[in-house]
Amino acid sequence: MSRAKIVFQGERGAFSEVAARRLLGDSISVVGVESFASVFDLVESRKASLGIIPIENSLIGSIHKSYDLLLERELSVVGETQLRISLSLIAPIGVGFKRISRVYSHPAALEQCSGFFERNPQIEPVLYYDTGGAVKMLAENKPADSAALAQPYAAEIYGLKVLKKSLEDEKTNFTRFLLLARKPEKFSGPGKTSIVFSMKNQPGVLFKVLSVFALRDIDLTKIESRPVRKKAWQYYFYLDFEGTVHQQEVRNALNHLEEITHFVKVLGSYPKWER
Amino acid sequence: MSRAKIVFQGERGAFSEVAARRLLGDSISVVGVESFASVFDLVESRKASLGIIPIENSLIGSIHKSYDLLLERELSVVGETQLRISLSLIAPIGVGFKRISRVYSHPAALEQCSGFFERNPQIEPVLYYDTGGAVKMLAENKPADSAALAQPYAAEIYGLKVLKKSLEDEKTNFTRFLLLARKPEKFSGPGKTSIVFSMKNQPGVLFKVLSVFALRDIDLTKIESRPVRKKAWQYYFYLDFEGTVHQQEVRNALNHLEEITHFVKVLGSYPKWER
Repeated sequence: MSRAKIVFQGERGAFSEVAARRLLGDSISVVGVESFASVFDLVESRKASLGIIPIENSLIGSIHKSYDLLLERELSVVGETQLRISLSLIAPIGVGFKRISRVYSHPAALEQCSGFFERNPQIEPVLYYDTGGAVKMLAENKPADSAALAQPYAAEIYGLKVLKKSLEDEKTNFTRFLLLARKPEKFSGPGKTSIVFSMKNQPGVLFKVLSVFALRDIDLTKIESRPVRKKAWQYYFYLDFEGTVHQQEVRNALNHLEEITHFVKVLGSYPKWER
Repeated sequence: MSRAKIVFQGERGAFSEVAARRLLGDSISVVGVESFASVFDLVESRKASLGIIPIENSLIGSIHKSYDLLLERELSVVGETQLRISLSLIAPIGVGFKRISRVYSHPAALEQCSGFFERNPQIEPVLYYDTGGAVKMLAENKPADSAALAQPYAAEIYGLKVLKKSLEDEKTNFTRFLLLARKPEKFSGPGKTSIVFSMKNQPGVLFKVLSVFALRDIDLTKIESRPVRKKAWQYYFYLDFEGTVHQQEVRNALNHLEEITHFVKVLGSYPKWER
C-alpha cells in the first residue's frame, strides 16, 4: 500500500506539515503548494488523499481565506489538531549568532518576535513569503551573515542549526488546523461538527439560530461570520459544536436550522482534538 | 474657530479621508499617519480632535486591527459612514494608456482589479504600501510608463489624470468607517451602539447573551469575535445594535449583560448612517 499523500500550503517544514505529522504520524508523504486554493485543488482532483489548512490562531484570529474556501469548495472536514507556535533562530552550520545581521521570515513571524529585534538592534528583520521557505533559501545560498525565524523541524529537514529557541513574544500562541478529505470518514469517540449557514434577514434571527442548539444542550465551541459577496452587510455564519451528524439530536438541530435559514452546509463531523 | 482636525491612516487622498469628508464636510483639516495605532495616539493626546478608521469591508470582512484597538484604547465611537470602493487608473498628465507598463497600488486594490490585469497582460501590477501613497509617488517622480490604482479624489489632490474608472472586479464593494473622539457626543435621531464583552466559560452562554437583546426586541446589526490574548480559544465578542445608551431598554440590556459576562465595555452610541 502506498503512503497517504498530504498536501499543505508552504514549503517543506511549514507548521502545517508538523500539524499533519501530529495527526497522522510520520508514515505519510507530504507535498507543499503555493496557495490554500491549491490544497483544495489537489485533494479534489485526487492528486492527494488529504489536505491540511490552518483555520485560526489564538493571537491573530480566524484565517479568512480558509473559511471562504470551506464554503466555496466541496471537501469534508475529517479532523482537527492544534500546535503551539514557537519560533527558533536557525542559521547555516558554522554561522554563529554574533555574525548575524539579517533575519528572514514571514511578516507575522517577524512581528511575533518583536522583543528579540528590540534586544538586538544590530539585526535587521527581512520579510520573506514563508517560514519554511526562508530556511530553504538559507540552505541553498548559505549566506554567512543571515538566519531565519522558523520551527525547529525546518532546521532538521534542511540540515541547518538552531541557534536560539522560543523567541516569540507571547508563549500562548496556538494555531488550530483542519484536515480535509473528499468524503466524510467514520470514527468513534467524541466528535465535533462544523457548519456554515446564511440567515433570513429578520430581527432576532441569530438568537433563534442559537436557540436551535441551546434548547438541545448542544455546546457551541466557535462562531465566526464572513461577508456574503454581492450582498453588502449580509453574513455567512460558521459554527463549530460538540457532537456529530450520527447523533439524533444533532440531526434534529440541523433540520430545525433549515426551517429558519436560507442555506445550511455541513462542513464535516470529525474526532475532537484532545490534548 | 479653527477647523476640526481629523486623523486617518494613509497618505492624503486615502479612502479614509474621503469617508471623513462625507461625514463632516469639506471644512475640516486632515492629517494622514502611518498606522491605526497612531490614529488613536493623536486623538488621545489631543493633537487631533477626531479620528477615522475602517472597521469592515463587504468583500474582505472585518479589519482585525481596528477591532483590537477599540478594545485596548479608550476612545468613543461617535459616528459611522460607508463608502463604495471604486478604483480608477490614475497617471501623470501626458501619460496615455498605451504607454503604461506598470501599475502601483496596495495589494488588496491590485487583487480587486484582477480582471483588468488579465485583459491587459502587457501591464505589470506592482505592490505599494498605500493607494494614496502610490498616486503621491507618481506625482513626485512622474515616470512615463506608470500608473496607480486609487480613488479619483487622489488624482484631484496630487494633480494627476484619471485614465479609466471603476476597474474593480466586484462592484458591490463597500467599506464601513467609524469616527472616534475622546468623549461621547450628544446627537438626536436614530442611533446605534457598539459594545465588546467577554463571557464566562459556560455552555450556552452566547445564547443567554443574545437573549438579553432578543427579549427586549433590540436588533443586532453585527457580531464579531476576536481571540483573547494569553487565553487560547477564548474570545471577545463585539456587538453592534440599534438604539443608544440614552434609551432605558438599552441600559436594562447592558445591566442584564453584566450579570452573565466577565467584562463589558461600551464603545459608543452614535447616529446611524443612512443612505
